[in-house]
Amino acid sequence: MPFSKQEETIRLAHGGGGSLTQALVRDVFLAAFGDSELARLNDSALIDVPAGRVAFTTDSFVVQPLFFPGGDIGRLAVCGTVNDLAVTGAVPVAISAGFILEEGLAVGDLKRIVRSMSDAAAEAGVRIVTGDTKVVQKGKGDGVFINTAGIGVFPEGRAPVTGSGARPGDAVIVSGPLGRHGMAVVLAREDLGLSSGILSDAAPLNGMIQAALSAHPGLHAMRDATRGGLGVVLNEIAEQSGVGIELEEDRIPVPEDVRSACEILGFDALYVANEGVVAACVAREHADAWVRALAESRYGKQAAVIGRVTEKSRHRVVLRTRIGSRRIVDVISGEQLPRIC
Amino acid sequence: MPFSKQEETIRLAHGGGGSLTQALVRDVFLAAFGDSELARLNDSALIDVPAGRVAFTTDSFVVQPLFFPGGDIGRLAVCGTVNDLAVTGAVPVAISAGFILEEGLAVGDLKRIVRSMSDAAAEAGVRIVTGDTKVVQKGKGDGVFINTAGIGVFPEGRAPVTGSGARPGDAVIVSGPLGRHGMAVVLAREDLGLSSGILSDAAPLNGMIQAALSAHPGLHAMRDATRGGLGVVLNEIAEQSGVGIELEEDRIPVPEDVRSACEILGFDALYVANEGVVAACVAREHADAWVRALAESRYGKQAAVIGRVTEKSRHRVVLRTRIGSRRIVDVISGEQLPRIC
Repeated sequence: MPFSKQEETIRLAHGGGGSLTQALVRDVFLAAFGDSELARLNDSALIDVPAGRVAFTTDSFVVQPLFFPGGDIGRLAVCGTVNDLAVTGAVPVAISAGFILEEGLAVGDLKRIVRSMSDAAAEAGVRIVTGDTKVVQKGKGDGVFINTAGIGVFPEGRAPVTGSGARPGDAVIVSGPLGRHGMAVVLAREDLGLSSGILSDAAPLNGMIQAALSAHPGLHAMRDATRGGLGVVLNEIAEQSGVGIELEEDRIPVPEDVRSACEILGFDALYVANEGVVAACVAREHADAWVRALAESRYGKQAAVIGRVTEKSRHRVVLRTRIGSRRIVDVISGEQLPRIC
Repeated sequence: MPFSKQEETIRLAHGGGGSLTQALVRDVFLAAFGDSELARLNDSALIDVPAGRVAFTTDSFVVQPLFFPGGDIGRLAVCGTVNDLAVTGAVPVAISAGFILEEGLAVGDLKRIVRSMSDAAAEAGVRIVTGDTKVVQKGKGDGVFINTAGIGVFPEGRAPVTGSGARPGDAVIVSGPLGRHGMAVVLAREDLGLSSGILSDAAPLNGMIQAALSAHPGLHAMRDATRGGLGVVLNEIAEQSGVGIELEEDRIPVPEDVRSACEILGFDALYVANEGVVAACVAREHADAWVRALAESRYGKQAAVIGRVTEKSRHRVVLRTRIGSRRIVDVISGEQLPRIC
């Protein structure tokens, strides 16, 4: 009898490694992911890679609520790891999926999440090849936590991109408007009782990045502006590269609804998490070509040069405000938005 | 000021992606793991692999209690993924570590766990190259959950080992005594109020497996006998290989203290989780050499032939008991031991 007819909620025994685990794997995970290697159910998946370097990354996802406007924890879990690979210049080829389920989780919710992962993986062109499921007692988890790890390969002749290659004179580019993911999630929290039309920007950016990288030289550093937002990520680039970064406030794309919501709730959009925005430092002479290349993707329509890399103010990010003053964009402590991804 | 002087427990902000996350990464994770690639703190780690196939696997760990006789969740998290790679014949090269911490966790406990991961990784000869940390509110997690994913490479000329290659006539071998991990964890649960000298067998088995594989042909199938125990794992091999398996009860090594504890608590040692035991199907003519090779490792001293692969009873595991009767070793539902790994 298929799993779906028997079970409406997850039980502890679904994580026990016996026949109930096997049914869950077969009827929920294999049914959605449908990967031939995953279906072998071996202790490890086998994937083919070219000789040389591979990129390897991991991320756990604990976002609440599990479903929010523009996405859910499943889409996030695939896109987050795909993007961590893509910003290094790698082509994501395979990801793993580790689930920690809370007893009592609705199987329908799990199926929706898994379907969303499958859709995001298909869009990114990446296979989900290996996985694992554990179940914890009610009150010892929070619905679903997902870990994804991923492997990416580098096209021949492509050097890995890091956060440490920014050089004075580079243009600083963002690929899209800031703050949508974080504000969509925060506004979806029931206890705030607010609503808006803001959608999370969670998206796989590997197609956009590959197209630009294949067509244009001059990329010196790239990161995706997730937890901690653009503010923290640019500080990390400034630190890793030993440079300063100067931003022009009026060039930074922040949607009007995000701006309003941030004002009401007391957030700074610079520190709000994105799940579909990269920050890049590009040689000045190639910056316009990069912006145009990014804008050819549906996810890069609002790509823009927002500042430049400087020799002075090393390890610091400075914002020139609309009114002409300058303020330091520091690394926040991390209190602003818990469980945003 | 170093993290260790400021903080005694984990706060939500340690997962916020800001300066507190950076301090946690630097003063706890980098301090223990000390890997040069991890220390770059890029979105992905870069590792070198030979051309061809790589093995890729993931496991999440939710064991309770976090510390138990013979190990802890950290040792388990490294050994589990190392062993999943090793049983495919791959040499584990790099693993990731994703932490989901509960607000209020003692930083001292986290340091102890991370040190244990570092020690296990050093013993296995594998690098911890990339990681991630999230924090959830008190009551939404359970101390620490750890996900590890891993990449393994195959020595030149080595074909991957799976669960599907067992052939009629093969000898069935286990590398060590059964049931120690599961019983050590269960007996460590305070609510049972029992104590014993049973230690978990959690161990990295890659050295033992590589040595035997390099020296002896004839390995047809191998799995590690974790969640679900030997009973479930042999059923999986029988299913994947389309064969039957016949076991001799009196040849299966079960330590006397494990046997007693199982009797008191109503468990069947065949289904109790191990974290340092592999089951292998080996061509009969090479079986004795394999047992001797495994026994050269400190983790394989009690390796033994415990049965054989048959053409009849396909997809089934049958046990010939001490008194000469036969019973089917079925796949249990998974109710027996929650959160054992």
